[in-house]
Amino acid sequence: MQYPASIGKLVNILKKLPGVGRRTAERYAFDLLLGWSEKEVDDLQKTLEIMHSSVRQCSTCGSLSEEELCSFCHDEGRKKETLCIVSSPKDIFMIEQTQEFTGMYHVLPGLLSPLDGRGVAFLGLDKLQNRLEKERVKEMILALDSSLEGDATCLFIKEHFQNQDLIISRLAFGIPVGSSLEYVDRGTLARAFHGRSSA
Amino acid sequence: MQYPASIGKLVNILKKLPGVGRRTAERYAFDLLLGWSEKEVDDLQKTLEIMHSSVRQCSTCGSLSEEELCSFCHDEGRKKETLCIVSSPKDIFMIEQTQEFTGMYHVLPGLLSPLDGRGVAFLGLDKLQNRLEKERVKEMILALDSSLEGDATCLFIKEHFQNQDLIISRLAFGIPVGSSLEYVDRGTLARAFHGRSSA
Repeated sequence: MQYPASIGKLVNILKKLPGVGRRTAERYAFDLLLGWSEKEVDDLQKTLEIMHSSVRQCSTCGSLSEEELCSFCHDEGRKKETLCIVSSPKDIFMIEQTQEFTGMYHVLPGLLSPLDGRGVAFLGLDKLQNRLEKERVKEMILALDSSLEGDATCLFIKEHFQNQDLIISRLAFGIPVGSSLEYVDRGTLARAFHGRSSA
Repeated sequence: MQYPASIGKLVNILKKLPGVGRRTAERYAFDLLLGWSEKEVDDLQKTLEIMHSSVRQCSTCGSLSEEELCSFCHDEGRKKETLCIVSSPKDIFMIEQTQEFTGMYHVLPGLLSPLDGRGVAFLGLDKLQNRLEKERVKEMILALDSSLEGDATCLFIKEHFQNQDLIISRLAFGIPVGSSLEYVDRGTLARAFHGRSSA
């Protein structure tokens, strides 16, 4: 005995969402069918459509915007001389929530991963070089994942731009705020010792 | 700084899914925007629409079907004398996956919850009584949640039908298969002692 065909199809589609397996997809599908009003489902469909047709990546920095020029590139109050490098537009919104950074952003097309065909050319560093010159950037902050790909990309960027008059930094590694030492893994703890600051 | 409006709206809509908070909804929204092809999003929209227009509850047992009469009520091979009572159509698919039950189903509109306005009348026991007589049911298996509402509903149904020539049973409580005793809560362990069987 299987579900009605359309439920089964929806389950398979929802499984594509990040971190969603069969069980969760089933929960979502049944909730969408039994718990959501017709208006709510309609809203979901329309919003998906509007989002996909109206949101694009800013031609300068790559952040998401419904306008031609994004709100960051538009904002005269932001410090042009500091450039934060991220590997996905969504990271920008995470960083903005901290209210810690007031410079500009640059979105890479992704992280280096030669095995997946994402080599050096993929990073589009010419475009980044153009911005560095045009906007007279003094500091470049690498806000990339702490993964093999993230580490490789940081290393490559650092070497690529090292002969220029430019400070290149990377986000600090350490203990997550609010966490207890016993739950911190060994690698993180080692990095936290390394990067310790005066108390 | 906020997301573009349509992303923010989609996040709010996705938060309605069960167990989904702001962070997860944000992940889904960005994935739908950046990771899904136009065709995939289109597929999602269309499938939602087809599901909502084609799937209905069977007029007899309440299970989900794309036909007028569901595949259970249609199937002559199932044992009419055993009726499994569930509180949501989706539970039927979970039970079917066990391949343990070959009788008929009856979906209640929900569980008793007087504070939410779901009193005795809400259960629609007249309809259930009609089926019991018409289909000459001999055993009724209550497959309801193990919650305050589930317990109350079981108790009420048991008392309501107790004077009839009918076996009324409820699913066993006990240790989940594959779990280790140290992770089992006290209440479950107590019920497992109570319902122990010869080894």
